[in-house]
Amino acid sequence: MSFDQKEIFSLMYKLARLIVPDTRVEYDSMGPMHIPLDRMYGPQTMRSLMKFPIGGVEERMPRPLIKAMGIVKKAAAETNKINGLDEYLCDAISKACDDIISGKLYDEEHFPLVIWQDGCGEHTNMNVNEVISNRAIEILGGQMGTKDPVDPNEHVNLSQSSHDTFSTAVRIAVAMQLQEKMYPSLRTFIDLLGKKSSDWMDVVKIGRTNLMDAVPLSLGQEFSGYHHQLVNGRTRLDSALSRLYQLPMGGSIVGTKVNTTKGFSEQCIKRIAELTFLPFSESPNFFESMSACDSLVELHGELNTIAASVMKIANDIRFLGSGPRSGFGELSLPEHEPGDLSMPGKVNPTQCEAMTMICAQVMGNHVAVSVGGSSGHFQLNTFLPMIASNVLRSITLLGDGMKSFCTNCLEGIEPNKSKIESIMKDSLMLVTALSPHIGYERSAAIAKAAHLNKTTLMEEAINAGIAVEDFQQWVQPSKMLGPHN
Amino acid sequence: MSFDQKEIFSLMYKLARLIVPDTRVEYDSMGPMHIPLDRMYGPQTMRSLMKFPIGGVEERMPRPLIKAMGIVKKAAAETNKINGLDEYLCDAISKACDDIISGKLYDEEHFPLVIWQDGCGEHTNMNVNEVISNRAIEILGGQMGTKDPVDPNEHVNLSQSSHDTFSTAVRIAVAMQLQEKMYPSLRTFIDLLGKKSSDWMDVVKIGRTNLMDAVPLSLGQEFSGYHHQLVNGRTRLDSALSRLYQLPMGGSIVGTKVNTTKGFSEQCIKRIAELTFLPFSESPNFFESMSACDSLVELHGELNTIAASVMKIANDIRFLGSGPRSGFGELSLPEHEPGDLSMPGKVNPTQCEAMTMICAQVMGNHVAVSVGGSSGHFQLNTFLPMIASNVLRSITLLGDGMKSFCTNCLEGIEPNKSKIESIMKDSLMLVTALSPHIGYERSAAIAKAAHLNKTTLMEEAINAGIAVEDFQQWVQPSKMLGPHN
Amino acid sequence: MSFDQKEIFSLMYKLARLIVPDTRVEYDSMGPMHIPLDRMYGPQTMRSLMKFPIGGVEERMPRPLIKAMGIVKKAAAETNKINGLDEYLCDAISKACDDIISGKLYDEEHFPLVIWQDGCGEHTNMNVNEVISNRAIEILGGQMGTKDPVDPNEHVNLSQSSHDTFSTAVRIAVAMQLQEKMYPSLRTFIDLLGKKSSDWMDVVKIGRTNLMDAVPLSLGQEFSGYHHQLVNGRTRLDSALSRLYQLPMGGSIVGTKVNTTKGFSEQCIKRIAELTFLPFSESPNFFESMSACDSLVELHGELNTIAASVMKIANDIRFLGSGPRSGFGELSLPEHEPGDLSMPGKVNPTQCEAMTMICAQVMGNHVAVSVGGSSGHFQLNTFLPMIASNVLRSITLLGDGMKSFCTNCLEGIEPNKSKIESIMKDSLMLVTALSPHIGYERSAAIAKAAHLNKTTLMEEAINAGIAVEDFQQWVQPSKMLGPHN
Amino acid sequence: MSFDQKEIFSLMYKLARLIVPDTRVEYDSMGPMHIPLDRMYGPQTMRSLMKFPIGGVEERMPRPLIKAMGIVKKAAAETNKINGLDEYLCDAISKACDDIISGKLYDEEHFPLVIWQDGCGEHTNMNVNEVISNRAIEILGGQMGTKDPVDPNEHVNLSQSSHDTFSTAVRIAVAMQLQEKMYPSLRTFIDLLGKKSSDWMDVVKIGRTNLMDAVPLSLGQEFSGYHHQLVNGRTRLDSALSRLYQLPMGGSIVGTKVNTTKGFSEQCIKRIAELTFLPFSESPNFFESMSACDSLVELHGELNTIAASVMKIANDIRFLGSGPRSGFGELSLPEHEPGDLSMPGKVNPTQCEAMTMICAQVMGNHVAVSVGGSSGHFQLNTFLPMIASNVLRSITLLGDGMKSFCTNCLEGIEPNKSKIESIMKDSLMLVTALSPHIGYERSAAIAKAAHLNKTTLMEEAINAGIAVEDFQQWVQPSKMLGPHN
Repeated sequence: MSFDQKEIFSLMYKLARLIVPDTRVEYDSMGPMHIPLDRMYGPQTMRSLMKFPIGGVEERMPRPLIKAMGIVKKAAAETNKINGLDEYLCDAISKACDDIISGKLYDEEHFPLVIWQDGCGEHTNMNVNEVISNRAIEILGGQMGTKDPVDPNEHVNLSQSSHDTFSTAVRIAVAMQLQEKMYPSLRTFIDLLGKKSSDWMDVVKIGRTNLMDAVPLSLGQEFSGYHHQLVNGRTRLDSALSRLYQLPMGGSIVGTKVNTTKGFSEQCIKRIAELTFLPFSESPNFFESMSACDSLVELHGELNTIAASVMKIANDIRFLGSGPRSGFGELSLPEHEPGDLSMPGKVNPTQCEAMTMICAQVMGNHVAVSVGGSSGHFQLNTFLPMIASNVLRSITLLGDGMKSFCTNCLEGIEPNKSKIESIMKDSLMLVTALSPHIGYERSAAIAKAAHLNKTTLMEEAINAGIAVEDFQQWVQPSKMLGPHN
Repeated sequence: MSFDQKEIFSLMYKLARLIVPDTRVEYDSMGPMHIPLDRMYGPQTMRSLMKFPIGGVEERMPRPLIKAMGIVKKAAAETNKINGLDEYLCDAISKACDDIISGKLYDEEHFPLVIWQDGCGEHTNMNVNEVISNRAIEILGGQMGTKDPVDPNEHVNLSQSSHDTFSTAVRIAVAMQLQEKMYPSLRTFIDLLGKKSSDWMDVVKIGRTNLMDAVPLSLGQEFSGYHHQLVNGRTRLDSALSRLYQLPMGGSIVGTKVNTTKGFSEQCIKRIAELTFLPFSESPNFFESMSACDSLVELHGELNTIAASVMKIANDIRFLGSGPRSGFGELSLPEHEPGDLSMPGKVNPTQCEAMTMICAQVMGNHVAVSVGGSSGHFQLNTFLPMIASNVLRSITLLGDGMKSFCTNCLEGIEPNKSKIESIMKDSLMLVTALSPHIGYERSAAIAKAAHLNKTTLMEEAINAGIAVEDFQQWVQPSKMLGPHN
Repeated sequence: MSFDQKEIFSLMYKLARLIVPDTRVEYDSMGPMHIPLDRMYGPQTMRSLMKFPIGGVEERMPRPLIKAMGIVKKAAAETNKINGLDEYLCDAISKACDDIISGKLYDEEHFPLVIWQDGCGEHTNMNVNEVISNRAIEILGGQMGTKDPVDPNEHVNLSQSSHDTFSTAVRIAVAMQLQEKMYPSLRTFIDLLGKKSSDWMDVVKIGRTNLMDAVPLSLGQEFSGYHHQLVNGRTRLDSALSRLYQLPMGGSIVGTKVNTTKGFSEQCIKRIAELTFLPFSESPNFFESMSACDSLVELHGELNTIAASVMKIANDIRFLGSGPRSGFGELSLPEHEPGDLSMPGKVNPTQCEAMTMICAQVMGNHVAVSVGGSSGHFQLNTFLPMIASNVLRSITLLGDGMKSFCTNCLEGIEPNKSKIESIMKDSLMLVTALSPHIGYERSAAIAKAAHLNKTTLMEEAINAGIAVEDFQQWVQPSKMLGPHN
Repeated sequence: MSFDQKEIFSLMYKLARLIVPDTRVEYDSMGPMHIPLDRMYGPQTMRSLMKFPIGGVEERMPRPLIKAMGIVKKAAAETNKINGLDEYLCDAISKACDDIISGKLYDEEHFPLVIWQDGCGEHTNMNVNEVISNRAIEILGGQMGTKDPVDPNEHVNLSQSSHDTFSTAVRIAVAMQLQEKMYPSLRTFIDLLGKKSSDWMDVVKIGRTNLMDAVPLSLGQEFSGYHHQLVNGRTRLDSALSRLYQLPMGGSIVGTKVNTTKGFSEQCIKRIAELTFLPFSESPNFFESMSACDSLVELHGELNTIAASVMKIANDIRFLGSGPRSGFGELSLPEHEPGDLSMPGKVNPTQCEAMTMICAQVMGNHVAVSVGGSSGHFQLNTFLPMIASNVLRSITLLGDGMKSFCTNCLEGIEPNKSKIESIMKDSLMLVTALSPHIGYERSAAIAKAAHLNKTTLMEEAINAGIAVEDFQQWVQPSKMLGPHN
């Protein structure tokens, strides 16, 4: 809820535009188009906008992807400078790109196109070219829409095709979004699970297999399992990332690099790596990287595995926290929402619910990505915008969701020690600790009696003539947490 | 791109708010919360907003769902009036609801909560209650945030729980969105396919099985298959809708109707039917309707089937339109985008691409819905907001996508008759028409010769001593489109 | 474990064959093939067997599908008889078909081909033709492999193509398997849930929402929800079946009915309906029915919905049965397996586990079916064997699984009444019943005290000065199961 | 079709059993059970067989999993010997295990249980214990069913639980099946694609983007993309394998190693590594490895990615081979099946069809695995048999399928050079090569003319006054395969 000067000016600007809602006219090869004066895109964007009215603002090409397009275009312009494009044009283009990279031009709504367009992102490539052209013209003091002195095709798109730029941008966007959204949340989650695990290493509790009571383990051991699931999850992402970093930039239309200068590809990718501080490199095979989306299918496969892990963890936690009276009740979840005052103790596990919904969504997104990934033809996969949007959405949802889950739930969870202990005391499963001392058959009889009489093992052991001290000495759950010597 | 007075005033209002960015304070049982002055929601909405910062504006609870909540609340208020709630309170609530039903309050950003919240939509129910309360207070000349004279809980939520209202609203939203987005597009699609089929009933073309040349059929017959796929699709939706219309409104927390007045449920649902002009009725079993989402899983199953149909159709069309020189080339797709001037005839099938991407997305959404639908526990399914958002998104994407596909592609498709005919003339598969006249073996020999020599059947038939007139008489593809007598 | 005369003879026959492991030679257009003497298939089957060595016996074309091919071939032969094929040939073919329809020839391993073959089932069609030919020859006293007097192509396959026969057979197989496996199990399940629901209508228990304690309902009400889920499930299947019954038999290669006699299609389908006692009819559009698998995608969508229902039910039951000490413990599941003697009361919910595994499998199968269904091209969908095998497997697994679940689990479940009651007595959620008598605030205070002191509502009510009789009069869970008057 | 002495004897043995179809009686804690005399399993297997009659022989617990159980049991026995179990018992157990490891006892039908049983494979663990016990008794000259001198629980299952053994065996089975089925096929596939790519590096052909004609590339470049997809696929598998090799053997019931001797786990896993020649090691966290199936979800994610790759490749190949007259026709696929003699050149791409069906199946299996993997609770995931069976089936299908595809299709593919060249000559897309010489506008005019007149570029260039020699010099597709200098 921060309202700053900038936002106010932006609104004033919009207001001005509305009061004089004039348009300018721009041309492409199909003729003239009216463009709202306050928009920097051009006729091709306008055509896509009119021909693909599919969904609303929710369906826009994702922000990280547009930012990545800015990076691609900046790197390309700077590489073109080396190869002879006029310095002042390149510099203007590069500056215009900065406004895309910062997200500013996206937030000011110059990128209205939806995901559901040309299957190789060509419309978005043109949208980016047009906006850069107009913004660069503005920087150079020219008049928007004139393509003078910066032409969207001849200058901005120089040495590029929609195919190599867009598929490169997708990989950049995904890699950056992972760094921004996923890894930090994953780190928080892992650290917190590690802390809980070590804090609770001595809280002995009942184990549950097939949903039935089993031999004990410690709450710390239980959480160490969750911890290790996510440690593995991070390693899985790392592995997939190594292939995602391989870019086909400069591959031109079909991967042959036709119409590019020798060296353009290497130089441009090197510049992308510098701009992003990420280890991008040239793809070992441009035909693979431009015609297939395997590295995205693979990466989403790892997200899918992480979703399966997190679904399990969040489910366990909400069941362990179920109650207040009739549930498992071993954990107390923090209360962040006003419940019904008259129903004390009813703290709904809403963070677990949000988290598990996200996991289900990621599992669904994975199918969309897999179907898309398997459906390419020949030199191109025309499901790329859909695939990219799903990968980016899964990263955002998992990243934000895990962070919210950690901060607003996991952090504040406390073991309900009295309940945990009373369950342990009640448990018939500790009978295995009796056997070595009084034999299998006597032990089994005691357990059976306790089951039938709804009593505790100790009560029946005493009935069976065992001394209290002996029982307490023999039956210690905390001694059942590892192998015997 | 329409800029009207309304929008200008709305921006001015925003501007005013920004210049005096004051907040008011509202209370709930957990204490005070600061609320932006220009927002009608209250403290519980504010808490959810802060505790579930997951995704951006794209992840908001969908507009049709909020509108449906308005309908539910209006119907409930009017039913409560019958049962004794003060008339002036009810009327104010009802009027406030109208501003939700029209979408106005959603567009003015009073419903900022995301999908990823409480799994039964409780936060959104509170958001709606709070907004209605404040809007009704405003209508009655009171002061927002005072809960006086309209209390979000005691008045707006009277006789209701989050569980029955939200799950009712989901069904209403889906049914209305189907009427608004899906059925009209489906009708357009069906009509257009029917027209194309009848227009082209006499355009004889080669059949293809296993992607190989086969006996002929007419282009109209081919399109009649597509037509029938979608006719069936509509019937499938109708079938699922009959169960979706069954509402659990009034079921209260677990379906028992506890805390409601006898008759509340029937009356309220009757009112919902009147307000929506749709045949909603009371669910035959409230426990099923509140604890399960089966009718949504079923409905999305039908959307999934429609997606499979449309994927096939759009794929066929883009392959039949492939070319201009090296593809199948039987159809000419309309050109709506400036291609590369130097590459004439290269009209990318972008509408097919958008359409098939949508179908893949729907197939993925279906898995999310199915996973969610199977994951409920006991009296509630806490994946409902996720399920609802996927069903609504699939409807929007398919509806908008099919409409765009029809208008911007299908409508303008023309058969490339010269190509279709030249393929027919070239085809070796017509040899089956020779057999009855010159015997199987001679026919096969002619076909084999044509295959080896890369000639036509007619050329080889003439070589084999058959008269041109006989050949032309015997081998007529148009006579191969039905059974013989 | 029944060993009968028949099986013994069959083994003796095999033994004889092994001792003289001779082969016969059969020819097709590619040359001679050696065929094991005791197999009735011919060279084309042999070629597929050698060229598609994918998976073992588990991957064979499913038995119900081969049986359905027998029905198709019998109906075709009898229709051909009307249209002039020699009566004695037809009769022999028809008799041979009977041995396929009974499953005998499948069990004797004359149909060894796997699912993973030609995508329109052509290999299986040839396998069936060859077996029928040889079996008919045998019946007529001829010599197997001579094609005399019954030729697999000219006689058995007369008026047919692989495309119309196989896609017809798939629909027949699915419909019959539904009658045999699915509907009976569904009926058992529905009846049993209905019975449990009515038996337990007065067993009042705690409700659970968001996994937390909520207002009460009766166990019978809870099970009535399950019951209604499956009643709906059956209606869903009925709806999909109506489209599945539409057959494209006689459509020939691409749906035009070329090379068939007028009337062949109608007559043959009529005969199929008679042979199966099922209401099969002619498809209203053969192009749709032969090029698309929509009716199978739709039908599996309903299976997917049923799987989601059953997953929820089986999950609820295993959680309600969890324990014996630390779980929910409201239900006692029957014990059919020897547990660990020393761990009494640990009855693993193994039937629930098998059932939920099946549901997950069905959800996976659904994706395979949807991907296949959306991937057809032009006049044929070459994923049909895969689709068919998944639909048939899902039916078998759900049918067998539900039957086993009913017989070996659901039937024997008993409510653990003492536990159910003690939970109710402990519950703080009944406080809502106090409010009308002592006011909201006093009630809330009592509930809060009970929560903090881990006492019961009654104890704190008495502390607060309420008479025991009043409390017992006011707080009766059984009065909270419906609306008030 | 090899019939050997062994098989004959096996049949004679069966015959003998059938003629005297006697049973023996064995006991477990629930009472006596009749067991067929010729079966080595015992009463607990028999109970599962009777209580889980779900599906037929196709649904049996997969062979590689039973073999892996043999390895686990052998390793455990040999570890127990170190820790004090009688040597002669251990040796007998070890020998009995050898008959399981070889597959012999599986093939002789001693492991009849289906996948759909106890969710942690407990029934199969008992099945294995019982068979080993009886086989070991047989080896030691005792009487089957007496548990003397080898008891299935006390001796065979010593230091083990169903949970650690079964989940260990699943990992072993998957790793071994990968070695046996997947890696060899992948190697063949990769090598063959590499060879084709290098063979065809100079065959210049048209590129296709958005299914439309684009700039050229070489057939070798196109296939190098496929090659690299699978090279990556192998690396992906390697990465997932590193986590799959981590075993929880010795973790006992919940991962604590309770009831095992210190060192048992390490020793036993070391032995497993020796027996399998695979680098198995102790899991760094047994709680993770026993309660989660993440490493299987991950691994299947890689199979899913490979399926997406292969689907794309097989689809491309069948489209490039489509024809003979009306398709793309650039590749000639080998002919292995008798087509219709009268339809020469119609070689159905049946291997592609089988391959793509398999890929769709794997994509479906992946959802089943993911749903199962996300659905574990507390110390156990009771979807493990289902998950394992899907992973194993996907490996078998992909492995066998790729091998068959390579041998019976890919190997024999030849470029149809005349068609490839004629397409190139016809192509308008080469116009880009003209521009540098005669300018963009003149080039575009020539291309446009050729498009309208359905002529070639060269014809129109000549019309436009360009010398033939110049045209031929300038427009050389082979010079368009890389960047310019």
